[in-house]
Amino acid sequence: MSELDPTIAEKLKRTADGLVAAIAQQRGTGEVLMMAWMDDEALHRTLTTRRATYFSRSRGTYWVKGETSGHTQHVHEVRLDCDGDTLLLVVDQQGAACHTGDRTCFDADVLLPVES
Amino acid sequence: MSELDPTIAEKLKRTADGLVAAIAQQRGTGEVLMMAWMDDEALHRTLTTRRATYFSRSRGTYWVKGETSGHTQHVHEVRLDCDGDTLLLVVDQQGAACHTGDRTCFDADVLLPVES
Repeated sequence: MSELDPTIAEKLKRTADGLVAAIAQQRGTGEVLMMAWMDDEALHRTLTTRRATYFSRSRGTYWVKGETSGHTQHVHEVRLDCDGDTLLLVVDQQGAACHTGDRTCFDADVLLPVES
Repeated sequence: MSELDPTIAEKLKRTADGLVAAIAQQRGTGEVLMMAWMDDEALHRTLTTRRATYFSRSRGTYWVKGETSGHTQHVHEVRLDCDGDTLLLVVDQQGAACHTGDRTCFDADVLLPVES
């Protein structure tokens, strides 16, 4: 059972696994850095510590972003979307957001380039 | 069976329902507008028409963004993230992205305000 504020918990529309999507965006530049998942407890920890904390679906554990790499995310603002299934985190990203070392997880693979 | 380019299709890491997440971001301003879902065919249509086309999980149908409202998204660029399960669409949003009439789906509900 999470300690997440019940007035927030009742707004969430979770997946069958109990998760909501979380998009991290760099404050100021607006770069979309990454997308990951949170359950109620991950959101609770993020809101109360302002350190972005996600839930790993593959490992089934919580991870504080940057805890091992140092590439932390200080959370300035958290918003919930209109249907309650996606969070937007406005953060200050230290270093690379992507585990590959890229600044964002969307840097490497362009499927459709800008029109020339 | 979708006509999606097989070299793209083989990169996608889909949910059990065959979907990848798609984040729409306004070109220039960097606003995060909304998050929705695509299957292979929705992505194929988006890439070939440059009109953002999503898959509705609740209705089980494709929807061209703005087809009824006029609030279309012209797609400038599509990027795939490092683990193949999330797309970033850089778009020109006509009018409101949110069905509520708000500019973005994240305008209405601030869970954690900016530090004062």
